[in-house]
Amino acid sequence: MRAAYHEELASIRDGLVEMAHLAGSAMVRATGALLDADLQLAESVISADVQVDALQRALEHRAIAVLARQQPVATDLRLVVTSLRMSADLERCGDLALHVAKLARLRHPEHAVPRDLRRTILEMGQLAQRLMAQAAEVLVTQDVDAALQLEKDDDRMDELHRMIFQHLMDDRWEHGVETAVDVALVGRYYERFADHAVSVARRVVYLVTGEYADHAAGPAAPA
Amino acid sequence: MRAAYHEELASIRDGLVEMAHLAGSAMVRATGALLDADLQLAESVISADVQVDALQRALEHRAIAVLARQQPVATDLRLVVTSLRMSADLERCGDLALHVAKLARLRHPEHAVPRDLRRTILEMGQLAQRLMAQAAEVLVTQDVDAALQLEKDDDRMDELHRMIFQHLMDDRWEHGVETAVDVALVGRYYERFADHAVSVARRVVYLVTGEYADHAAGPAAPA
Repeated sequence: MRAAYHEELASIRDGLVEMAHLAGSAMVRATGALLDADLQLAESVISADVQVDALQRALEHRAIAVLARQQPVATDLRLVVTSLRMSADLERCGDLALHVAKLARLRHPEHAVPRDLRRTILEMGQLAQRLMAQAAEVLVTQDVDAALQLEKDDDRMDELHRMIFQHLMDDRWEHGVETAVDVALVGRYYERFADHAVSVARRVVYLVTGEYADHAAGPAAPA
Repeated sequence: MRAAYHEELASIRDGLVEMAHLAGSAMVRATGALLDADLQLAESVISADVQVDALQRALEHRAIAVLARQQPVATDLRLVVTSLRMSADLERCGDLALHVAKLARLRHPEHAVPRDLRRTILEMGQLAQRLMAQAAEVLVTQDVDAALQLEKDDDRMDELHRMIFQHLMDDRWEHGVETAVDVALVGRYYERFADHAVSVARRVVYLVTGEYADHAAGPAAPA
């Protein structure tokens, strides 16, 4: 009985880890689609998003089943409730990757991102995936230091986000309004994605220590 | 004992309704601050956001306490779990109002929104508040028809959002890149706010009927 119970809790955690990997992979592929104006890759990201949504729904049902059957208390109860919040974060990350892929599709065969910003966007995409991989690892290891490190690594995302805005607002910007709006929105998608990864890590810290690390999931203002 | 239990469930619902009212009020005041370049009003929205966050945290603690003490099953269990998701939606709405207010503050004493778009933004702000008020009512009445109506009313928000983008992309746009980016982001904040209100209503439908109305909280792509 106890073994089955712990298996159920572990399977919730595994579901979260799987969602994190799917979302990270989706974001890195969406970035590729965006930077290479690769329609096929964009389509593959768009059609794969249902997997993340399905995982989230399955995880919610599993959590409800555990609550009903096992009636966990204390730490286990907090774990299940927090899992529900984390799965919402991760589902949202899948949506943000979807938005990036949809923009690539919308502008194809043109490139949505001008040449002089591709490096920055590439770094944002890679960083997004790395942050998400770290969040997945923190889910498994429950390592509080690693969770706090993730928060520091996210500073680089905020910096890249600011760089994009500075670039857009520069008088020498020559790519017009449509491209500026595209880039501003895309920049925000990456920044939000990273915020959700940080939020997952913060929730692990809360589970382990019982204390909130700052304000959970508090997003930075875009400007 | 049963009376106390139902009181606890009712107090969770009341907390959600209060969050919805605070978020709706914040968005309408943020819109005022944005359109009138009213710094004081912007500051009041910004400093009030902690209330929404505190309510969310209180509600989460209350939900966990109910789960631990009462070990609800079936419908009641689903109610508590769904409340956690709804409170996350509503907390996010508070953040979106905060973003609008912060933009007003950033551009003060200038107006962030050019004259020819103020009517559209005003309508978006009013619609956002109305949708949120409807969501709050659906929380109380559990009226499935009203919940589905909300979804239809949200179509107008999507239309306004599209109108803004058409306006930005028009060759006659004369307000420069910075303003275009501001308006694009603000348009997205309203659209997301409305999506979360719809999501709350959808979750009520799910509670009442046991069926998802379409994909919960599925946002429209911004472009």
